[in-house]
Amino acid sequence: MHNTSQTHTFIGFDATYEQAELVLAGAPFDGTTSFRPGTRFAPNQIRLDSYGLETYSPYLDLDLEDYALCDIGDVDLPFGNTSRALSTIQDVAKGIIGAHKKPLFVGGEHLISLPIITELYTKYPELHIIHFDAHTDLREDYLGETLSHATVLRRAWDLLGDGRIYQFGIRSGTREEFNWAKSHLHLNLFDTHSLNTVLPKLQGKPVYLTVDLDVLDPSLFAGTGTPEPGGLTFKELMKAFYLIQNLNFVGADIVELSPHYDPSGVSTAVACKVIREVSLMLCKKTSL
Amino acid sequence: MHNTSQTHTFIGFDATYEQAELVLAGAPFDGTTSFRPGTRFAPNQIRLDSYGLETYSPYLDLDLEDYALCDIGDVDLPFGNTSRALSTIQDVAKGIIGAHKKPLFVGGEHLISLPIITELYTKYPELHIIHFDAHTDLREDYLGETLSHATVLRRAWDLLGDGRIYQFGIRSGTREEFNWAKSHLHLNLFDTHSLNTVLPKLQGKPVYLTVDLDVLDPSLFAGTGTPEPGGLTFKELMKAFYLIQNLNFVGADIVELSPHYDPSGVSTAVACKVIREVSLMLCKKTSL
Amino acid sequence: MHNTSQTHTFIGFDATYEQAELVLAGAPFDGTTSFRPGTRFAPNQIRLDSYGLETYSPYLDLDLEDYALCDIGDVDLPFGNTSRALSTIQDVAKGIIGAHKKPLFVGGEHLISLPIITELYTKYPELHIIHFDAHTDLREDYLGETLSHATVLRRAWDLLGDGRIYQFGIRSGTREEFNWAKSHLHLNLFDTHSLNTVLPKLQGKPVYLTVDLDVLDPSLFAGTGTPEPGGLTFKELMKAFYLIQNLNFVGADIVELSPHYDPSGVSTAVACKVIREVSLMLCKKTSL
Amino acid sequence: MHNTSQTHTFIGFDATYEQAELVLAGAPFDGTTSFRPGTRFAPNQIRLDSYGLETYSPYLDLDLEDYALCDIGDVDLPFGNTSRALSTIQDVAKGIIGAHKKPLFVGGEHLISLPIITELYTKYPELHIIHFDAHTDLREDYLGETLSHATVLRRAWDLLGDGRIYQFGIRSGTREEFNWAKSHLHLNLFDTHSLNTVLPKLQGKPVYLTVDLDVLDPSLFAGTGTPEPGGLTFKELMKAFYLIQNLNFVGADIVELSPHYDPSGVSTAVACKVIREVSLMLCKKTSL
Amino acid sequence: MHNTSQTHTFIGFDATYEQAELVLAGAPFDGTTSFRPGTRFAPNQIRLDSYGLETYSPYLDLDLEDYALCDIGDVDLPFGNTSRALSTIQDVAKGIIGAHKKPLFVGGEHLISLPIITELYTKYPELHIIHFDAHTDLREDYLGETLSHATVLRRAWDLLGDGRIYQFGIRSGTREEFNWAKSHLHLNLFDTHSLNTVLPKLQGKPVYLTVDLDVLDPSLFAGTGTPEPGGLTFKELMKAFYLIQNLNFVGADIVELSPHYDPSGVSTAVACKVIREVSLMLCKKTSL
Amino acid sequence: MHNTSQTHTFIGFDATYEQAELVLAGAPFDGTTSFRPGTRFAPNQIRLDSYGLETYSPYLDLDLEDYALCDIGDVDLPFGNTSRALSTIQDVAKGIIGAHKKPLFVGGEHLISLPIITELYTKYPELHIIHFDAHTDLREDYLGETLSHATVLRRAWDLLGDGRIYQFGIRSGTREEFNWAKSHLHLNLFDTHSLNTVLPKLQGKPVYLTVDLDVLDPSLFAGTGTPEPGGLTFKELMKAFYLIQNLNFVGADIVELSPHYDPSGVSTAVACKVIREVSLMLCKKTSL
Repeated sequence: MHNTSQTHTFIGFDATYEQAELVLAGAPFDGTTSFRPGTRFAPNQIRLDSYGLETYSPYLDLDLEDYALCDIGDVDLPFGNTSRALSTIQDVAKGIIGAHKKPLFVGGEHLISLPIITELYTKYPELHIIHFDAHTDLREDYLGETLSHATVLRRAWDLLGDGRIYQFGIRSGTREEFNWAKSHLHLNLFDTHSLNTVLPKLQGKPVYLTVDLDVLDPSLFAGTGTPEPGGLTFKELMKAFYLIQNLNFVGADIVELSPHYDPSGVSTAVACKVIREVSLMLCKKTSL
Repeated sequence: MHNTSQTHTFIGFDATYEQAELVLAGAPFDGTTSFRPGTRFAPNQIRLDSYGLETYSPYLDLDLEDYALCDIGDVDLPFGNTSRALSTIQDVAKGIIGAHKKPLFVGGEHLISLPIITELYTKYPELHIIHFDAHTDLREDYLGETLSHATVLRRAWDLLGDGRIYQFGIRSGTREEFNWAKSHLHLNLFDTHSLNTVLPKLQGKPVYLTVDLDVLDPSLFAGTGTPEPGGLTFKELMKAFYLIQNLNFVGADIVELSPHYDPSGVSTAVACKVIREVSLMLCKKTSL
Repeated sequence: MHNTSQTHTFIGFDATYEQAELVLAGAPFDGTTSFRPGTRFAPNQIRLDSYGLETYSPYLDLDLEDYALCDIGDVDLPFGNTSRALSTIQDVAKGIIGAHKKPLFVGGEHLISLPIITELYTKYPELHIIHFDAHTDLREDYLGETLSHATVLRRAWDLLGDGRIYQFGIRSGTREEFNWAKSHLHLNLFDTHSLNTVLPKLQGKPVYLTVDLDVLDPSLFAGTGTPEPGGLTFKELMKAFYLIQNLNFVGADIVELSPHYDPSGVSTAVACKVIREVSLMLCKKTSL
Repeated sequence: MHNTSQTHTFIGFDATYEQAELVLAGAPFDGTTSFRPGTRFAPNQIRLDSYGLETYSPYLDLDLEDYALCDIGDVDLPFGNTSRALSTIQDVAKGIIGAHKKPLFVGGEHLISLPIITELYTKYPELHIIHFDAHTDLREDYLGETLSHATVLRRAWDLLGDGRIYQFGIRSGTREEFNWAKSHLHLNLFDTHSLNTVLPKLQGKPVYLTVDLDVLDPSLFAGTGTPEPGGLTFKELMKAFYLIQNLNFVGADIVELSPHYDPSGVSTAVACKVIREVSLMLCKKTSL
Repeated sequence: MHNTSQTHTFIGFDATYEQAELVLAGAPFDGTTSFRPGTRFAPNQIRLDSYGLETYSPYLDLDLEDYALCDIGDVDLPFGNTSRALSTIQDVAKGIIGAHKKPLFVGGEHLISLPIITELYTKYPELHIIHFDAHTDLREDYLGETLSHATVLRRAWDLLGDGRIYQFGIRSGTREEFNWAKSHLHLNLFDTHSLNTVLPKLQGKPVYLTVDLDVLDPSLFAGTGTPEPGGLTFKELMKAFYLIQNLNFVGADIVELSPHYDPSGVSTAVACKVIREVSLMLCKKTSL
Repeated sequence: MHNTSQTHTFIGFDATYEQAELVLAGAPFDGTTSFRPGTRFAPNQIRLDSYGLETYSPYLDLDLEDYALCDIGDVDLPFGNTSRALSTIQDVAKGIIGAHKKPLFVGGEHLISLPIITELYTKYPELHIIHFDAHTDLREDYLGETLSHATVLRRAWDLLGDGRIYQFGIRSGTREEFNWAKSHLHLNLFDTHSLNTVLPKLQGKPVYLTVDLDVLDPSLFAGTGTPEPGGLTFKELMKAFYLIQNLNFVGADIVELSPHYDPSGVSTAVACKVIREVSLMLCKKTSL
């Protein structure tokens, strides 16, 4: 008689929490954003626009309809209290992981990765990170704050240590960040050309995938706080996903869409398609 | 642990269907729109932005929280098939009315009023209509079509006959429409000044309220297909609502928001507030 | 078989040049605009959007379809050469006036009024001007230039002398302009309240009407170079037109729409309706 | 004295209908559009913005000024009546083809291709189709409707049968569509790499070219209903045109620009340039 | 030889700090904004656009050029640390007040009023507040936080106590806020009609003026976080300023412009004009 | 205590004029722009948005902080007087060059290059030009005017003669321009592939670099008057800069950003990054 399902969940995420192998949660937090805030509006806008998307991916030849996926909605975050927001996200992540499901978070700003990584690291001490981004996010602190979108990968390194983080598409940062990176992690400037080389090191390891959507060129992805020209094309990102599709992903996030800077809706359409591809990679059964 | 309620329903509409005295349904139909289509996107955008609204109305001194309200989501409409769309809406209206609840539909274009009026007329043969609009909507046909946003009140007149329709805020139409109106209904050009005069005629009658939001001046309400300068201010509409608040409303609709022509979000905020006020008027207990 | 009429002319302007009593011409000139240029795009955008307009005016109870109206398109103007642009406009005006038709120009910026006024003054030495605007436009020069959108009424005064110019809706200018105005013309600050008082002085006189659309409040009319809050509502402008409708208008212009600052299309819709009303006032047969 | 030619026709289309070898017609129909309607506004916006285009193409080293081209304006379509709209377009196509001219239609949505293909198929039973698009458009029906933008190539296949349709740039569809395509037509996923391989099969055949502009990446072409990241760059499309320029084209269409989703005007500029290139390919004299 | 003055300061604010009687400072803080953040961008955008403003006010018949005004730029605020931000603003306010100059702050969000009021209260224990706003801002806490844009006037009341705060234009809040207000302060619902009545109580008192620009109707002022239809027109605000112009103002702020929600630039133009008027009121010499 | 540096200068340009080796000046002139004016707003918008940029370039591995850079603000230009505007720019250029500093101008439209080139040619009779652009800009005159954005490189050729101008990325012009170019200068159609070939001819020569930002594809750079699809990607431009970084640059300009056509801010972010790279190339010490 009527259709109430449209705005509730991301398209194809219609399993119950109990059935689900993959659980999507929104993390509408943008409290440390320095330039153009607004990523707090991303999860709901993404759900709304996901109904323009096909569930079938011609890139991976997989279909969302073949998996048990659940969208539990947005984490309920307090305003203007960074530490409480992070611990709330961590609680949700803990619940999902404890229930033997894979977590997929949709930001919000990049800092939301930290509590998820923290929780996964507890379960997987050998955790590695694949990080697509325009920015290094490796500062020790940003304007005095150690918990910031600009420091989040440095905080992840605090946990995981040297040689565990693989960055791709990077094209902006301070000279100090680039210098520091040389001895602590793998940083692929501008593109993803080194993926083939480093792939063997990630085989069989538990891998967390964090996609800051501004890794894409702002020609395609204008809807973000700090547009950085010189980024990946969508095809380059799809090709990178194709290469890594058989890794052992234990969780992922997609962050930094700011819908109010996306009047054409193209950035949101991009985010939807990236979420589809990442979901399929997380669900794909692999024999390691 | 998480908050999934945000996008589901209009703010304050958290009763079950069984409890509800008032039932809101979206009717995302814009198939006969001639100028700038897009009202199909209104119900979901309204639900999303309604969370910027207070539930308390200082205009009526009433609060949504004091009533049992249910939002059943959008009617599931076929694309490009006007007659099937209308009969589907009529089925939903019939269900609500049959369950002794009041229907409140959110368009979509103005033609969606017709099946609701048709259904209410069956129950209330003495049905009267209060109609706020910039346009007369009184054409016999529009480009050969008799079912159109431009003919909807004429079709309502086909049912109800002379003297049952009261139009306010009208400022656009053909000369023929204005001439025809003189002998068949009450048409208040430009404003609502005649409300006090006609109010006694409506006392005790079952009244349907249809609000085409373009009755408001496009300075405030730009997000619509055919902006017509010279409309009501928001205060004038609120004053009109104040005057009619104690009538015996048996149903209502709010139509013609086109969110893609509302980049600032102001038109959607206006629609939200109008829905709040109309909901409160429909729920308010009156002794007739 | 096909419809090529849509974009050619303003709606209802379908007479031949020979038949026409009123001739509309576009003057897409914005060479002296200081703040936000772009009025050069107005005439064609207005023609395109005029097809959302009814030909019947409920304000004047007149219909464009009852008059012989011709739209001759845009004057072909050289770029960046103010004096040549003005003389080209003057030639077109001369042709129209010489053919015993009334000219109606659509700008472009306000400076385009000058050549039309100059030409009409030759025919009507008793020419008076009614001027709706946010700005006085009475500077002796602007950044050293004597021919500017900011000096155009001062240049008209050079021709016509004291007591011939009546300004309404003015709310922005230098202190010097306001002081100078006191002894040379009629300036109605903020609104049109003095219209009733001055109307007798204009009876029987040949009157030129120049409407700078920024006389309207920027809430309604954002699509202009220099938005000045505190302007007229559309109803106030319509009421003013109603008062002056029986004057002996010999020509008119409507200027300063800048369509690229009008993403919602509301400003263009306003311009269309003002053109309709002014056209009807110019055509209306009056017995003086 | 004045310039009325600006808005009438696409730039360089200044021949009379009698002289013309190529006839452009607008088909402003978007009645089956499911996501974001508005392609009805494309033809007129394209004409207006075409005056920012040079008539000379450095890609093909040809100039529109060397050919006899006529723009007959928009087909006059009824609102909300798909079958009448299609038959009206077919009548216009029949007239052009019957006069031994080549038809070039500017949409409107993709369904407008069907009546043109139908008419050309009558004249050329060996008709082949080159189809640039993001979407397969191969559904048997869409939400129960067999005539839809999402089924148009399937309907063309109903006429032409296996092996006649060549699709390029495809990147979105259901799994069923992709599977069906394998045994019925040539589908080049993502890009145009197979063009060189298939070109010999098209030599000497009468070829219809249908360009759904969303084949281009939404980074460049955001102004469309369903943006699909991962599309062609403009250079890739130009290179494909270069390869096919000497085929025997008997007609073409360019569809799916939605100007209200193109605030920057870039999508419209793209559409203009594609129309120039396609016009030149259709006019180029080839010795097969 | 070159002009570097354009972007530095608000127009007409060209005195040195030492000369100045009035000191303008930007407070680009939006850390507690709940709905649509972005007021952090207001001060610089206002400075840029102020060059479209005349220095002369026809409302007050005063000119910025007659006063010694200094714009010291933006307070340098840490990101995401509300208490440090507030104490930094308070330090700047203290410096200005201690130098016997009047402070005029441009927000940023409304919470920035609190440190300025705190500092002025130290100097003027009899401080009264005139508050123009759409919202009461009287919550005890907002989502658990006591320092918020939604609590700022309640915090001011904590300092000043009953009977010192006069609110105008209020039209949104919880039922609790409206009830609380009745016994603690003067709240003028919807408009400013009570100004004449309360004016005598403010004569001779030190008055702080805080203007939340969303007191204006969103038809005119769309560029704000929470648009509330039913607000003041610009003329109504100017009339209110005219009535209070001779009070003894000891400081003021203008807050809540969010320029990224103001694509037309109208909201910023409004903010500029309000700043001009408030500056003139603060500088006007009055005999109390 | 407060931060006034934000809007004054481009980021990292904090040296005094006396210290500076490179001097940036804005030239906000767009008087001959034919299609969409507005480049006059570019310099100030660029300064404002440059604070989202890092000073370190990973492309050149250089940092603005290592050089003495001064931003002297905008040249103070008269409105609507092309010859006076050009001579004013020339005076500023002369001053900078006379003080043995390198000039970097930020437009404004492309015509502003002419006075700078004229002045540098006086000092360097062997001056060569590298020109990135979508358009040839080689017309003898444009609509009768010899000084135009469409003729600027032809005027430069008048000075320098054959073989001194190297154009890259060109994709739009009249057939006559392309033909003329063949015998007078180096024109690289569509891309920069010939850079390696021509580089030896430029070694040791004084080189002026003029970057019309519309050389970039409008997918990335929509904020310009005449968008021309088929342009360079940002990476292609960076690669070209990498190749030419060691030439002997004696001055440069970056022109044709029109911020009002850049609602997303991406075009302005692109302009900022190009200015950073060009600044670093001009400052880099090279041994010739």
